[in-house]
Amino acid sequence: MPASEFGQLQRRLGAGKVLLRPSECSSYRYDAIQFGVRPLAVVLPETVEDVVQAVRAAQAAGVPVVGRGAASGLSGGAAPAQPGLVVSFTRMTALRILPQQREAVAQAGVVTLAVSEAARLHGLTYPPDPASLRTSTIGGNLGENAGGPLCFKYGVTGDYVRALQVVDADGEIHHLTRDAYDLAGLMIGSEGTLGLITEATLRLVPPARHTLTLQASFGSLEACAAAVSTAISAGTVPAKLEFMDAACIGAVEDYLHLGLPRHAAALLLVDSDGDDPAQVEAELKVVEEAFRAAGGEVRRARDAQEAAALWQARRSVSPALGRIRPARMNEDIAVPRSRLPQVVAEIQALAEPYGFPLVQFGHIGDGNLHPNILFDPRRDDPEQVHELAHRIAQVALRHGGVLSGEHGIGSMKRAFMAEAVDTQTAAAYWAIKDTLDPAGRLNPEKLLPPRGALATGPEVAHAGA
Amino acid sequence: MPASEFGQLQRRLGAGKVLLRPSECSSYRYDAIQFGVRPLAVVLPETVEDVVQAVRAAQAAGVPVVGRGAASGLSGGAAPAQPGLVVSFTRMTALRILPQQREAVAQAGVVTLAVSEAARLHGLTYPPDPASLRTSTIGGNLGENAGGPLCFKYGVTGDYVRALQVVDADGEIHHLTRDAYDLAGLMIGSEGTLGLITEATLRLVPPARHTLTLQASFGSLEACAAAVSTAISAGTVPAKLEFMDAACIGAVEDYLHLGLPRHAAALLLVDSDGDDPAQVEAELKVVEEAFRAAGGEVRRARDAQEAAALWQARRSVSPALGRIRPARMNEDIAVPRSRLPQVVAEIQALAEPYGFPLVQFGHIGDGNLHPNILFDPRRDDPEQVHELAHRIAQVALRHGGVLSGEHGIGSMKRAFMAEAVDTQTAAAYWAIKDTLDPAGRLNPEKLLPPRGALATGPEVAHAGA
Repeated sequence: MPASEFGQLQRRLGAGKVLLRPSECSSYRYDAIQFGVRPLAVVLPETVEDVVQAVRAAQAAGVPVVGRGAASGLSGGAAPAQPGLVVSFTRMTALRILPQQREAVAQAGVVTLAVSEAARLHGLTYPPDPASLRTSTIGGNLGENAGGPLCFKYGVTGDYVRALQVVDADGEIHHLTRDAYDLAGLMIGSEGTLGLITEATLRLVPPARHTLTLQASFGSLEACAAAVSTAISAGTVPAKLEFMDAACIGAVEDYLHLGLPRHAAALLLVDSDGDDPAQVEAELKVVEEAFRAAGGEVRRARDAQEAAALWQARRSVSPALGRIRPARMNEDIAVPRSRLPQVVAEIQALAEPYGFPLVQFGHIGDGNLHPNILFDPRRDDPEQVHELAHRIAQVALRHGGVLSGEHGIGSMKRAFMAEAVDTQTAAAYWAIKDTLDPAGRLNPEKLLPPRGALATGPEVAHAGA
Repeated sequence: MPASEFGQLQRRLGAGKVLLRPSECSSYRYDAIQFGVRPLAVVLPETVEDVVQAVRAAQAAGVPVVGRGAASGLSGGAAPAQPGLVVSFTRMTALRILPQQREAVAQAGVVTLAVSEAARLHGLTYPPDPASLRTSTIGGNLGENAGGPLCFKYGVTGDYVRALQVVDADGEIHHLTRDAYDLAGLMIGSEGTLGLITEATLRLVPPARHTLTLQASFGSLEACAAAVSTAISAGTVPAKLEFMDAACIGAVEDYLHLGLPRHAAALLLVDSDGDDPAQVEAELKVVEEAFRAAGGEVRRARDAQEAAALWQARRSVSPALGRIRPARMNEDIAVPRSRLPQVVAEIQALAEPYGFPLVQFGHIGDGNLHPNILFDPRRDDPEQVHELAHRIAQVALRHGGVLSGEHGIGSMKRAFMAEAVDTQTAAAYWAIKDTLDPAGRLNPEKLLPPRGALATGPEVAHAGA
């Protein structure tokens, strides 16, 4: 009886920590892209012991447990697929900076930006910068192994993890370091399907002291891709290297009238950073020359204010798209950089017959592209949206890419996973899942390809005994 | 019947690829620190398909499979603990550099240094620099997640892995990327106990253009540790930051008469690197000032030749120790940097009653310390050596450290693992092992704590169903 188990949990933890009313629980069924089912109960833990109690109550009730941070995710990772218990980490916000070790010890509910802000007082920073960093939490970032514009130079969330505290499917607490079997690494990006991350020890670095910015527009996708390749081949490692396609430029220009080049096929925004101004200037100069050589029209920001103005175009993509259609399916493919012109063109061609407005932007340094399908849920057929998203995923896979650059698989791309990984590797995923969560209670119906989609059983795990 | 299975394998692959004579197999039973048992057969694969055949032959014969690179490991990882098949990767040396992607695709047998040398032609480099990089292989480095002096600034082997090709316990081939469940990360550092890594896609970076070097000596361990802390707190990230204790200084000075300060309690060697000479100079100046403020006597190298002379002290540690006693047990603990003075002093005090000469050196930036117990296997009691090694490991654990910074656990520190990880985490290790290698044929008796050493059974995996 879930109700009685969660009633007991409420009595043990206190009424303020456990929500049981359907009206309250309703607010915990979605993330930024997907609606899930209403949870039976929501727990708001303040300590790791509260999480242990919650997991054990769900175990006793025989229902799923879904971890949730700020619910700003873009793949449905935190939206429950089945009725169960949601563990909302928003009150687990303890944060300590250890300047000598250059580490932050952050509970799962700490807001991403809070880590950088606390680190800054000690002359340090935490580089991973998902777009949602003002609201997203460290726990959610870890669950999806989130990236951001800075990840081309500085790496993704998982690259900054020294250790994790994790509560497993049985409510046991683990302290995972990165030696021996890297179980911490296995938890990162696993979307709460193998355990609940309750605390992370994160590596901090000294921030770059200087940043310079430029914007460039190109007459063709090929010219844009060639410009990026030339700049990178010349040894530059820009801190940010962002791409917008013609549709995206048009959407932002319609919205803000910034004077963006409507005739352009592609726009690039580049930050170069470092400690030495001359070195930063030298790097941006190489980038600038590579861009001009490829036919780009380049604008350099003369100061921080101009830099902010140039970046406004990129920052305004989300609200600009919201004006075109009320909803969007935000893809997150990553492909070898050399394939980008072809991939962008193929996806554009694919979308045309469907009639949905489609814009493309992303972190071009990593080949991480966000094709966004814009639609109106009151009018458009969700099947059609899903079909187009699926065909976009297939374009990525055909070009040697992967389904997710930084948003995770969640429920949104789960059905495509059977095409993304070999049968034997999918079977190994399931074998790991079955081992660490034999009852299948941790965030079911996420990330892993549906078992039925596998051609054969989990032979990796069982055939060899 | 192993003999007939391996005879068949020899007929299938060709006589040159499969060694069956005991005299030939004897050469494949050790690594740089440990003798194991003589393998029943040795296979020298040239392709991943050869590896598949080898694994299937071992499966049919019902005997273990142990992967082996250059056997330069320092924890017994490649020394077979049971009679079985050794897969020696020395002929799998295909290497491609993809300059556009900044990647190297290296088969397991590629020598570590060969990756950097091939990358250099394209203006790139591969930073991980284990001391054995002239002989060690990429496969061995991945198996132990090897580090080196550069890892404080640049990270360890695993930080450069984009994808792996792996042959599992059943002879199935996997192509593992770092998204979804990070099975590639799980393989790294698993010492061939979960699969055989046959090929790696490695990330390359532009090399730093300038390097400056200094050496500093200190009158006490505390002064040395304080100097390092001050330099790092000031925001410097030296490329290398190496430590030698008084006994180590004495051993090298006895050997080479370089004029090292025999009175010193500690010696530091520092490289600062970067693209901009002024920036590198500025960083080393901060380091220099921090060292002097802590009472260090500092010597700056004026040119590359002087830098090489300063580094000769560190490079000569191994031969210098070999002159004192013919054998050594090379520990590889890592502790929080702030604890180093205490840890070094405690280990020194521990060793005294045993009468073994003991020297300590290591990568102080990471808190990675190599206490070396020097002994004579003809005279000294191996039980005593092991007991001291165990007590040294316990010092590390007591100070919040780990058993291995860069050499792996192997057979050498396996018995200490039960003290290093919690029961529930050790059980999770075993649950993963049992899932991916149910017959226990992949490099048995390595890394994982002996099952008997666990207080309870693998409850993580089975209690919750």
